[in-house]
Amino acid sequence: MSFYLHDIPLSAAQTRFEQALQSAELDHILGSETIPLDENALGRVLAEPVWARLSSPHYHASAMDGFAVRARDTDGASLTAPISLQVGEQAQYVNTGDALPAWANAVIMIEQTEPLDAKGRLSAEVRAPHAIRIRAAVPPWKHVRALGEDMVAGELVLPTGHTLRPVDLGAIAGCGHDTVSVARRPRVAILPTGSELKPIGAPVAAGDIIEYNALVLAAQVRDWGGEPTRFPITPDNREAIRARVLEAAQEHDLILLNAGSSAGSEDFSAEIIRELGDLLVHGVAVRPGHPVILGLISHQLSAISLSPFVPIIGVPGYPVSAAMTGEIFVKPLLHRWLGKAIDQPQTIEATLTRKLASPSGDDDYVRVAVGRVGDRVLAAPLQRGAGVISSLVRADGIVIVPRGAQGHPAGAAVRVNLLRDSAEIDRTIFAVGSHDMTLDLLAQFLAQRNRRLTSANVGSLGGLVALRRGHAHFAGSHLLDPETGTYNTSYLPRYLPDTPVQLVTLVGRQQGLIIRSNNPKRIMSLSDLVRPDVRFVNRQRGAGTRVLLDYELEKDGISAETISGYEQEEYTHLAVAAAVASGRADCGLGIAAAAQALDLDFVPLFEERYDLVIAAAYAHSDLLAPLFDVLADADFRHAVGQLPGYDVSAMGTVVPLS
Amino acid sequence: MSFYLHDIPLSAAQTRFEQALQSAELDHILGSETIPLDENALGRVLAEPVWARLSSPHYHASAMDGFAVRARDTDGASLTAPISLQVGEQAQYVNTGDALPAWANAVIMIEQTEPLDAKGRLSAEVRAPHAIRIRAAVPPWKHVRALGEDMVAGELVLPTGHTLRPVDLGAIAGCGHDTVSVARRPRVAILPTGSELKPIGAPVAAGDIIEYNALVLAAQVRDWGGEPTRFPITPDNREAIRARVLEAAQEHDLILLNAGSSAGSEDFSAEIIRELGDLLVHGVAVRPGHPVILGLISHQLSAISLSPFVPIIGVPGYPVSAAMTGEIFVKPLLHRWLGKAIDQPQTIEATLTRKLASPSGDDDYVRVAVGRVGDRVLAAPLQRGAGVISSLVRADGIVIVPRGAQGHPAGAAVRVNLLRDSAEIDRTIFAVGSHDMTLDLLAQFLAQRNRRLTSANVGSLGGLVALRRGHAHFAGSHLLDPETGTYNTSYLPRYLPDTPVQLVTLVGRQQGLIIRSNNPKRIMSLSDLVRPDVRFVNRQRGAGTRVLLDYELEKDGISAETISGYEQEEYTHLAVAAAVASGRADCGLGIAAAAQALDLDFVPLFEERYDLVIAAAYAHSDLLAPLFDVLADADFRHAVGQLPGYDVSAMGTVVPLS
Repeated sequence: MSFYLHDIPLSAAQTRFEQALQSAELDHILGSETIPLDENALGRVLAEPVWARLSSPHYHASAMDGFAVRARDTDGASLTAPISLQVGEQAQYVNTGDALPAWANAVIMIEQTEPLDAKGRLSAEVRAPHAIRIRAAVPPWKHVRALGEDMVAGELVLPTGHTLRPVDLGAIAGCGHDTVSVARRPRVAILPTGSELKPIGAPVAAGDIIEYNALVLAAQVRDWGGEPTRFPITPDNREAIRARVLEAAQEHDLILLNAGSSAGSEDFSAEIIRELGDLLVHGVAVRPGHPVILGLISHQLSAISLSPFVPIIGVPGYPVSAAMTGEIFVKPLLHRWLGKAIDQPQTIEATLTRKLASPSGDDDYVRVAVGRVGDRVLAAPLQRGAGVISSLVRADGIVIVPRGAQGHPAGAAVRVNLLRDSAEIDRTIFAVGSHDMTLDLLAQFLAQRNRRLTSANVGSLGGLVALRRGHAHFAGSHLLDPETGTYNTSYLPRYLPDTPVQLVTLVGRQQGLIIRSNNPKRIMSLSDLVRPDVRFVNRQRGAGTRVLLDYELEKDGISAETISGYEQEEYTHLAVAAAVASGRADCGLGIAAAAQALDLDFVPLFEERYDLVIAAAYAHSDLLAPLFDVLADADFRHAVGQLPGYDVSAMGTVVPLS
Repeated sequence: MSFYLHDIPLSAAQTRFEQALQSAELDHILGSETIPLDENALGRVLAEPVWARLSSPHYHASAMDGFAVRARDTDGASLTAPISLQVGEQAQYVNTGDALPAWANAVIMIEQTEPLDAKGRLSAEVRAPHAIRIRAAVPPWKHVRALGEDMVAGELVLPTGHTLRPVDLGAIAGCGHDTVSVARRPRVAILPTGSELKPIGAPVAAGDIIEYNALVLAAQVRDWGGEPTRFPITPDNREAIRARVLEAAQEHDLILLNAGSSAGSEDFSAEIIRELGDLLVHGVAVRPGHPVILGLISHQLSAISLSPFVPIIGVPGYPVSAAMTGEIFVKPLLHRWLGKAIDQPQTIEATLTRKLASPSGDDDYVRVAVGRVGDRVLAAPLQRGAGVISSLVRADGIVIVPRGAQGHPAGAAVRVNLLRDSAEIDRTIFAVGSHDMTLDLLAQFLAQRNRRLTSANVGSLGGLVALRRGHAHFAGSHLLDPETGTYNTSYLPRYLPDTPVQLVTLVGRQQGLIIRSNNPKRIMSLSDLVRPDVRFVNRQRGAGTRVLLDYELEKDGISAETISGYEQEEYTHLAVAAAVASGRADCGLGIAAAAQALDLDFVPLFEERYDLVIAAAYAHSDLLAPLFDVLADADFRHAVGQLPGYDVSAMGTVVPLS
């Protein structure tokens, strides 16, 4: 059952909006302005074609330093039969760029002339001698840049709709213009509304939401060639929001009304739009983004627009929905208003690393991390939540699962709309496996060496499976073998029988209990976990920390069923710490660094080894070379050593495999 | 023999510059600044990593409008055995985004609750009833966005060196920051020098050069993240230039000293740099760009830099050389100073449409037009001259012919560094053939339909050859068959025996004599061409106009040898007109529009048909569909009709082929 019963398909919403824009005569360039031809013209879009006003060069120009001559005067000159030309009548010194005298039609390079004095002797006066002697004939127009060589007056230099680049400015100046007619920048009002919103930088309490959608929308608008105005936050007050919308309509071409994330504020938006004009669409079957509203406000007067209508888009409150609404609805509209050609996004075919389920009623925009492992391009779906802005930050691309499809199985070939240059993808190290804080530092140090580290956190065993499938360059792993007490080595023949790998130690690290500050429940050991007043939070099956826990519980004869919260699983050390910090749990097993990050206490219990399992196929690649550099970097070792509970003495050690 | 005897290979020049920057401690980020987190941060480069300060959400947040509950209180609820929860103690209304009460650990959507009044009857008070009745149990944490779901305090959000995009600003705000530490923008002084230079917009006489290199360099610097300062033009005066360099060194991180195009001014640059510091490189074996100078100026004091050195680059005067010097030397330096990761350019493999000769001593940067014709990507070399800025404007990519290589034969596979998105290449219509002014208008109209028209002018026969090789989507052609008096049709079986094509008329056009204003030599017909005082300028062999001329000369019994200038060939109508306008010739055969563009007179002699020969394989493609739309567009017909000497009555007519 869906709350947005009135959701309509994306294509239908686009068509309805499109038709309304057409009726309102808002489906073309908004207007043009003539601006000076300077570096501020960079990135502007031509509203008119540029036709050459002057030819370039606008005269016959010497292309060399030398003497301008008549080609026919040089006929017959040779090494053994030189010819002398009188300076003044038959030859004239010209610098590169100088105009040829009217009688001249060729230039001889100065190095190929012998300066002579009045008596026919060699002269020291190379540029203004009495005469020159030459030992080769020149054809007409040799070393001359003819009038119009570059551009001819009347020629089309750049078409309407072209976005100006540095060289374009030069060409426009070079053919005689000192101004340029460009599309007026669409003015976009961004209205954040919601009583729960706090401005960036203000102190926040539980229930307060930091309002940054307006910032993201404003930056998008600027990126796409518009001029954003960010309005202050309007609380959830119908009249206040209505007044703001009317105010914004006076001086803007488009209003983005960003509702708070609650259904209540969204209802205000729809009501106000219906009242002030035309509510075209309320709810679009696209994910994330559902409660998108599209409308047209009628208004009396506008300082800037000739149309009595201002389009308004009700942008959903969740940050990913807001940003995607920008991409899907605002960007094409701004491009249209600028008269800009719309390029299709760059796409790449990739293999899905895991199953992708999708509700069949929606066009589903799924963020993915993309990496090239060997010959294969991989797409790993990221967190789907509409509130997870970091998933958009980490995203390398978007896979659109169209309405009607239910998703894709793991291993399926999907088309990815790239958000990054494919060159950036090519310098991405794709890590899948167990999470550790030092991977963040590793990413930071790799970035300084022109590598991007993308890591998908699926636990140690998940990492080995990814390596076996050829879905990762390396996997972080801390798998304890309960029989031998060793780390990782015994797992490799079992999980990677046919995949040669190199095992390199990253760190030794303490595992222990993450507990609340001052340890109010006096939790000191695993045996405290069975106390009825203690609620535990666990790691997911397959995670090295989970294996360690189960091993130690077994050793101590503690039954998992007796631990309250044993079935509560988190996927990272920090998530475990967050569960404790929030009071959702009293303790969890994890690493010291995670406890410190959230100001929690830590009871060290065990020490374990965290290794990188590196696919041998890439161990000596250019791509991974910086990884080994970082492992040998004293600054990196020092930075990791600063984190609590880490032992860096074995960092970079290659672990022998039997 | 080379004038720049001291040219050194590009790699050696880069190494020498690199080492000098290292010694001067100028090989890393220049400095950082903390700026407010607003839309002006867009495009800035992180000088420090962003670690999450707050978790996001920073509390357990309801993901729905509904009632916060304890999951265990709902155990056992089912359709037939509903459970009632007291509002206040067991249930509390929450909007999406609200914090859960400390005792709650799950949310039930409002649609799945039945509001009850104090007597247990259904209530109209949906958000604040006395109690709620539920008919399903909920697991813990259902519809809750747990603390840290998006970002966890202490986590790495973005690494140093990252260029900020709209969503990044949101993520940085969302994890508790209101400022961001970014690399200081390098300040770059741009000093145009040369007595022959005139500012953009000033009137120009022969010998004057419009100074736009500084504009191009300034726009490049801005594009690459620097802050440019354009200085006024300094004449070729050693002391004045020296003073400017010293002035610029005070407040800039880099000086670009743009010499006039003459060797003289370049010598000043080298002398001044030698005098004020260290002349590292004078002349680099790269084309275009030879006379590049690299140096370091020592200076006493700087308001902005801690280094007592300011790098200086002597930029050659030719515009293509200047822009390429920016790409090769300035861009990597600015990226280095910003701490930005350097992405390799996007490359594509392409087939050369014609032979590419290259001097073996230089790294040769050849501008090419790139188009995709069927399965094949084609690269057509553009004009090579260092003064032809329009070649950079038209360029879709660069082919680097490395030092030591002598070029490539036609048909060779070359790697192209793309200057445009490959999506832009995919919407490019690649035309090869005869030139006509209406093609400029066609390009303009196609641009409005999201197509780019790239046309290589090689004459009508050259176009047919390109079609045969699969090197063009269409060819413009006006080939007269002297035997039948028809246009184009009889040539097709001969030149394109195996290539099905469609023949569509673009225009009928007058051909005639382009002559100087007021026709001082009274040239009225072809018979005047043989007069000794008349100098003719011809079109190249293979051009339709040339075929027409030869046909008419033959008919009139005029021998080509008797025409002075018959052997002078130009490749376009406008180039013929420019030759007449400049006085290089008295007349040429061409079209009326070309004469009008340069204010020349025109004596109409013949009317001919100009057709588009369209490869049948693409005639019905999406790519070419807009071409047919334009041919049927009344606005286009009107615009062409405005050009003198055109007949648009047959526009778009498909010519039957026997």
